[in-house]
Amino acid sequence: MYNKYNCLVAQSGGPTAVINSSLYGVIMEASKSNLIGKIYGGLNGIEGIINDKIIDILSIPYDKLKLIRFSPAAALGSCRYKLKDFKEDDTDYKKLIEIFKKYNIKFFFYIGGNDSMDAADKINHYAKEQGFEIQVIGIPKTVDNDLVFTDHCPGFGSAAKYIATTTLELALDAEVYETKTINVMEVMGRNAGWLTASSALAGEKMPYLKQLIYLPEVPFNEEKFLDDVYKAHKEYGNVFITVSEGIVDEKGDYVAKRENAYAKDAFGHTQLGGVGDYIESIIKEKIYKRVKMTRLGVTQRSAMHFASKVDFDEAEILGREAVKYALNGETGKMIGLIRESNNPYSVKIGFIELNKVSNHEKKIPMQWINSEGNHITKEFLEYARPLILGEVNIPIVDGIPYYTNFKYAM
Amino acid sequence: MYNKYNCLVAQSGGPTAVINSSLYGVIMEASKSNLIGKIYGGLNGIEGIINDKIIDILSIPYDKLKLIRFSPAAALGSCRYKLKDFKEDDTDYKKLIEIFKKYNIKFFFYIGGNDSMDAADKINHYAKEQGFEIQVIGIPKTVDNDLVFTDHCPGFGSAAKYIATTTLELALDAEVYETKTINVMEVMGRNAGWLTASSALAGEKMPYLKQLIYLPEVPFNEEKFLDDVYKAHKEYGNVFITVSEGIVDEKGDYVAKRENAYAKDAFGHTQLGGVGDYIESIIKEKIYKRVKMTRLGVTQRSAMHFASKVDFDEAEILGREAVKYALNGETGKMIGLIRESNNPYSVKIGFIELNKVSNHEKKIPMQWINSEGNHITKEFLEYARPLILGEVNIPIVDGIPYYTNFKYAM
Repeated sequence: MYNKYNCLVAQSGGPTAVINSSLYGVIMEASKSNLIGKIYGGLNGIEGIINDKIIDILSIPYDKLKLIRFSPAAALGSCRYKLKDFKEDDTDYKKLIEIFKKYNIKFFFYIGGNDSMDAADKINHYAKEQGFEIQVIGIPKTVDNDLVFTDHCPGFGSAAKYIATTTLELALDAEVYETKTINVMEVMGRNAGWLTASSALAGEKMPYLKQLIYLPEVPFNEEKFLDDVYKAHKEYGNVFITVSEGIVDEKGDYVAKRENAYAKDAFGHTQLGGVGDYIESIIKEKIYKRVKMTRLGVTQRSAMHFASKVDFDEAEILGREAVKYALNGETGKMIGLIRESNNPYSVKIGFIELNKVSNHEKKIPMQWINSEGNHITKEFLEYARPLILGEVNIPIVDGIPYYTNFKYAM
Repeated sequence: MYNKYNCLVAQSGGPTAVINSSLYGVIMEASKSNLIGKIYGGLNGIEGIINDKIIDILSIPYDKLKLIRFSPAAALGSCRYKLKDFKEDDTDYKKLIEIFKKYNIKFFFYIGGNDSMDAADKINHYAKEQGFEIQVIGIPKTVDNDLVFTDHCPGFGSAAKYIATTTLELALDAEVYETKTINVMEVMGRNAGWLTASSALAGEKMPYLKQLIYLPEVPFNEEKFLDDVYKAHKEYGNVFITVSEGIVDEKGDYVAKRENAYAKDAFGHTQLGGVGDYIESIIKEKIYKRVKMTRLGVTQRSAMHFASKVDFDEAEILGREAVKYALNGETGKMIGLIRESNNPYSVKIGFIELNKVSNHEKKIPMQWINSEGNHITKEFLEYARPLILGEVNIPIVDGIPYYTNFKYAM
């Protein structure tokens, strides 16, 4: 009999509709391996692991466990916890190694975004320095789609599909009245406009729709903006404006002017929200009164009820491939997707050192943004279109999705 | 050969996800009858009809026409146009009769809410007074579900399903962090809390969820509200608050305090919106900072991508039955649904005089609201549950719904 080691999987950062599909992939692939004994789940990311909040995933009946896959939000819970540099303070790292030893963990899979890859990288380096053998593999997820190296991030396609669909529904609704409407939709995305731009996947289907798109990649100039809106409204009547919560002015300051706009999270990131109110108010003051503002909030990252099948499947595949890769002895890498072709859509699996991913942000290339800075080009559409294809057949009870997490499943 | 008469159908008021399903029902049923010649559509309700904006619906190729059924928003366009009392000013009425004569119209189907039933009633009475023979039948629609007589209104079930699903997704998302969240969701509904209450269809599935629901039926007391939220947050951490845009204080004044909160529409109804901001701000000031406010806006009435099959089918049936009823010589009535049983769910068709519907509002019965005035009882759940059942298999192109209206179809 093999000398079995255990594996640990955890989730971190803002959840997505398909983050549990990656988790499911890890669980299913790990459970097939003769080299892996128990599969542990760390609750609330590294913050929970440090505090010994560990569950034995396979002790959950499979009929409950399999439903995790169809649920949005992070089934294991998440955290926004910043690990200090271990050269300055290794308290957390010592605790982590203790936990790894306690549970005989040799494989650690961390599903998350930028900050999670940073944490995984630090843990991997610390373990090496201490001579503690562990394979650490990062699995990307983020609706923001801002991780470098990977062609796109699981979670983005589903959020993009929901945003495009909502754009369609709001824009069509505006067409029913003779009185014209300026729609303003505020979309998530801290410093990258991928999600905001995905609203154009609806616009390309509506030849009568005049759409304006404002991204964090282009400095926001209020005068130019008002001029855009004035002209668009004058010529077309109805105008659909999609604006990123993260737009910045020429000085690089966030435009959002709400009282709470400058609160900071644990990583020192400015917590955004409120730019829609601001945009609404300046249009009403300067141009036209009938403005409808929609703030989808976290529905964008949790709308599993209309997730992308491509996204859902890729999320699972990355979870599975991460396990295979770790079993081959690799560590300190993030798994990702490399695009081979747009049409037919084709991707292959790739890997990169965690430290090449953490603390970088991938923005929309400037050549994919129109010269006016208020829309995107067909290159973006060709990139994004394949990522929103297909629907997921989710379980439904009494007319609404059946969602669960480990708290509900146990 | 029969001496054929033509029929006219139009839509009015705020659209719903399934208002075009009723339109489709009218078209399909009317096109089967030997007594009906052409099927005309009035664009933008009676406002457009008065201005001779009439289209010949059957001239549209069927492969385009059939897609109308799966599209939200009013395919014929809508209006918010108030007909004067014809005893005071019959200008509009004279124009309407001219149009009816010009197109040889003997059947008029008006799909709408309260105000539309009022318009249909006035037109019917005026025509009778003038000795002009026309059958006028109202077909109910409204996400607000506030029409009297009919058990429920087409459009409500789909909006309720979307709101319940969104509640699930937001509430599950809040569970991922150790840091607790107070969610505030602002829901449509001018003076009746049906849509807001439907959020409880999610709550009943989430045993860990502490939900508070504030309806226009219960006078809103800020002190009591803050006390509710404080206690709920203290005991449960995460709290999910669903609040109607139309909540009023003890004096009957709307709580929404936005600068634009007191604008009025053509019917003198106060245009609401903004109560979510207000609720968010008082909680942040008095209780807890981490509040997430979601304003779904018109997505509530247009989310055809996750519509209720029961609602979708009933909308079509009411359109079809209205035609059959008119062909039997009836006029001046609204068609509606009478519930026979909750479980198994069963309804039958009924009719009522238009003037018994117009200018009345059906509110949630007080015995369906808990004694604290911050939640609903199981009677509401038993009423609402059957209305959100089933999904509609909508056409999807490139990953997003294929929606259309007559502007796109022609």
